[in-house]
Amino acid sequence: MTQTPKNIAIIGSGLVGSLLAIYLRKKGHEVTVFDRRPDIRTIKFSGRSINLAMSNRGWRSLKQVGLEERIKEIAIPLDKRAMHVNDKPVYFQKYGKEGEAIWSISRGILNKKMIDLAEEAGTEFRFNEKVWDVDLPEAKIYTGETEKSKWKEYQYDVIFGCDGAFSRVRHKMQRRSRFDYSQDFIDVGYKELTIPANEDGTHKLDKNSFHIWPRGKFMLIAMPNIDGSFTCTLFLPFEGEVSFESITTEEAARKFFGTYFPNVKKDIENLSQDFFKNPTSAMVTMKCYPWTYWDKVALVGDSAHAIVPFYGQGMNAGFEDIYVLNELMDTHGDNWATIFEKYQKERKPNADAIAELSYRNFVEMSSKTADPKFLLQKKIEKWFSAKHPDKWIPIYSRVTFSERPYAEALAIGDEQEAIMQEVLKMPNIEKDWESKEVEGKILELLGDS
Amino acid sequence: MTQTPKNIAIIGSGLVGSLLAIYLRKKGHEVTVFDRRPDIRTIKFSGRSINLAMSNRGWRSLKQVGLEERIKEIAIPLDKRAMHVNDKPVYFQKYGKEGEAIWSISRGILNKKMIDLAEEAGTEFRFNEKVWDVDLPEAKIYTGETEKSKWKEYQYDVIFGCDGAFSRVRHKMQRRSRFDYSQDFIDVGYKELTIPANEDGTHKLDKNSFHIWPRGKFMLIAMPNIDGSFTCTLFLPFEGEVSFESITTEEAARKFFGTYFPNVKKDIENLSQDFFKNPTSAMVTMKCYPWTYWDKVALVGDSAHAIVPFYGQGMNAGFEDIYVLNELMDTHGDNWATIFEKYQKERKPNADAIAELSYRNFVEMSSKTADPKFLLQKKIEKWFSAKHPDKWIPIYSRVTFSERPYAEALAIGDEQEAIMQEVLKMPNIEKDWESKEVEGKILELLGDS
Repeated sequence: MTQTPKNIAIIGSGLVGSLLAIYLRKKGHEVTVFDRRPDIRTIKFSGRSINLAMSNRGWRSLKQVGLEERIKEIAIPLDKRAMHVNDKPVYFQKYGKEGEAIWSISRGILNKKMIDLAEEAGTEFRFNEKVWDVDLPEAKIYTGETEKSKWKEYQYDVIFGCDGAFSRVRHKMQRRSRFDYSQDFIDVGYKELTIPANEDGTHKLDKNSFHIWPRGKFMLIAMPNIDGSFTCTLFLPFEGEVSFESITTEEAARKFFGTYFPNVKKDIENLSQDFFKNPTSAMVTMKCYPWTYWDKVALVGDSAHAIVPFYGQGMNAGFEDIYVLNELMDTHGDNWATIFEKYQKERKPNADAIAELSYRNFVEMSSKTADPKFLLQKKIEKWFSAKHPDKWIPIYSRVTFSERPYAEALAIGDEQEAIMQEVLKMPNIEKDWESKEVEGKILELLGDS
Repeated sequence: MTQTPKNIAIIGSGLVGSLLAIYLRKKGHEVTVFDRRPDIRTIKFSGRSINLAMSNRGWRSLKQVGLEERIKEIAIPLDKRAMHVNDKPVYFQKYGKEGEAIWSISRGILNKKMIDLAEEAGTEFRFNEKVWDVDLPEAKIYTGETEKSKWKEYQYDVIFGCDGAFSRVRHKMQRRSRFDYSQDFIDVGYKELTIPANEDGTHKLDKNSFHIWPRGKFMLIAMPNIDGSFTCTLFLPFEGEVSFESITTEEAARKFFGTYFPNVKKDIENLSQDFFKNPTSAMVTMKCYPWTYWDKVALVGDSAHAIVPFYGQGMNAGFEDIYVLNELMDTHGDNWATIFEKYQKERKPNADAIAELSYRNFVEMSSKTADPKFLLQKKIEKWFSAKHPDKWIPIYSRVTFSERPYAEALAIGDEQEAIMQEVLKMPNIEKDWESKEVEGKILELLGDS
């Protein structure tokens, strides 16, 4: 079904705002994107980002508007984890089956590209224009220099809030009665660091791997960029014995890396300087409901559902919101009230599911990676899955290499977990895990014997 | 330990703000209370309140500053529930042991009295003065006619946010990183109605009872006032077959009361008019952390922990915050950073516990009161508790007639619940619940056989 062209405002020129603009332009709408910050294409991108991991859901959303190939030009496929444990050789773990990969992309480069593409598609961008208030029932927005300065009023037909975890649009919705909202910070922060390219422009570490240096309560990761560098992220508790709080001098920073990351220390650029120059960022899970206001306003992406980054699904989930919105626009044409109602009903349980899965991955990495029972469980799952790939799709693959709903992945993951808890109770499981009995037990519990 | 007199601002002239002012005046501090609303003593109190149920925690906090007797003058003790089921005589349930009661007080009357008492104690009140912003590290507040008008700046030593569930002070704290926050609305709303006094000034229903008309998904309650009237509260889903949404005409309102509350309908004043004149209010559980900012700012009462009203503990919990703060001031003198840190650490788990208990009471009332298994459980608990009053203090008594921490009440309540779930599995429990075997089983599970 086609739609009558509307005059639409998008608040936020990030990845979700730019992609939504491209979708809406394809449908013939007039689109203006507001951003309180300057045009990212004109400034140095700040040192506070984790590289993105584009996976199936993200690619599907780009493909729908013909952008998959153009974005793959700036992405590097990673088909495996590279685990760096001190005094041992690097250990590689394949992510999925042959041909399955996540794609590393620099957030800054992708965002610039997406804005270029949205502009090509005819979107108007208004950078450096701060939205301070939104009249929800009238679909009006108010911009100005400061919260107390004289404001300019704009009238639209529809407004999309794509302004991230600390959304101003949501902030306005939040002041209404019966708006459910939560923000939960984790006790771990992160800091961006860099491994530069070799002099010949090649990568210093394996280019097609997601590099991890797991250290129990903290870890370092590195993801490749197309210029030969790696964007590294140090995840570390804010407080405690080994923490951001306890590392206060360049000497202490050097000592910390020398102790825990000796093999990579020499490769990190300006380590002790960047450690203090780059900000320490916090991570939050943000949930809310409703996501829409009548047929006037809708939240999309992080503004509706910010998650911690430990599943690499934040951007993918936001892009999937747009894919679903687009399907609903195709089906319901000009009935924006129905589009918005069905959009929030369909996406909310999936957003909650990926929030839960992302948080669990954080807990798993923080506390379970050293637990022998947990490692045994993972071994058994992997072994069984290799024997019966049709009967046991690991949850990581369901989330990353599938387009089935996140809520389904979570539900099946919970069933698999319950089965494994039964299996781990079997006598002598530590020794006899690679046995016919274990295989039979899992098949039986799957209702498949 | 005494304290050096400070210049202190309290935002909010509600029950908690007024009582805190009295405590702080006793310690010799200069106290100014700001409220965006007019002086409640000069206006008609709005028809959107549930009567208060003062219980032990509240009384202890008043007694500490010598106010218990003065407040008992405007309160009525309720020692029992009066259950009104259609076509059956009223059924009474004692709340606790002889002499244990909750006390019904009109919120408007109590608030006026508390402001009088705070003024007597030397507090300055600034009504009609709206606080729009708080400088947390500098302890400055900014007031003005509107958010965009010219503001007046005030400098204080310490600021207390006692401005309720939608606190402006907390709102400012919430914009900081790493501030955890949640607000969860329930799908049930409430509306205030009135049963006036008889012509001779006496009460139309038993004066010393908390009256309940339970009707499954909804209920009516009535609590007495000292002028002979009752303040009634109708709790009803916002949406659904029988709901606020479905009652849109005076005729529909009369029919609703005629069907579900025939015996009380005639006593309610201006039923169909008040039903539409009085607002329908929402109920929220609000949690946050931290509650304090350095030695400068602290949240007290609903601004730190708003709860649903189904345990009658909202005001009691807020008053207990003040009692605990006062103890900490006695111990730590001028060390406000320590006072605030210990205050939030001690109170947070207890606030979470009473939030959980209040929410569970809502669920219990909505869905369990018709469940025969649940009713059997309550019967067994009552029977055992009567036989062994020292071994089984019901959770209601632990919350209401005790000053032990809410978190302890919740923990022991959960243990009791686990014991009862075991007991309910006993063969023929429906018939043989009043038996030696059941008594022995409970004693055994209590570790007491």
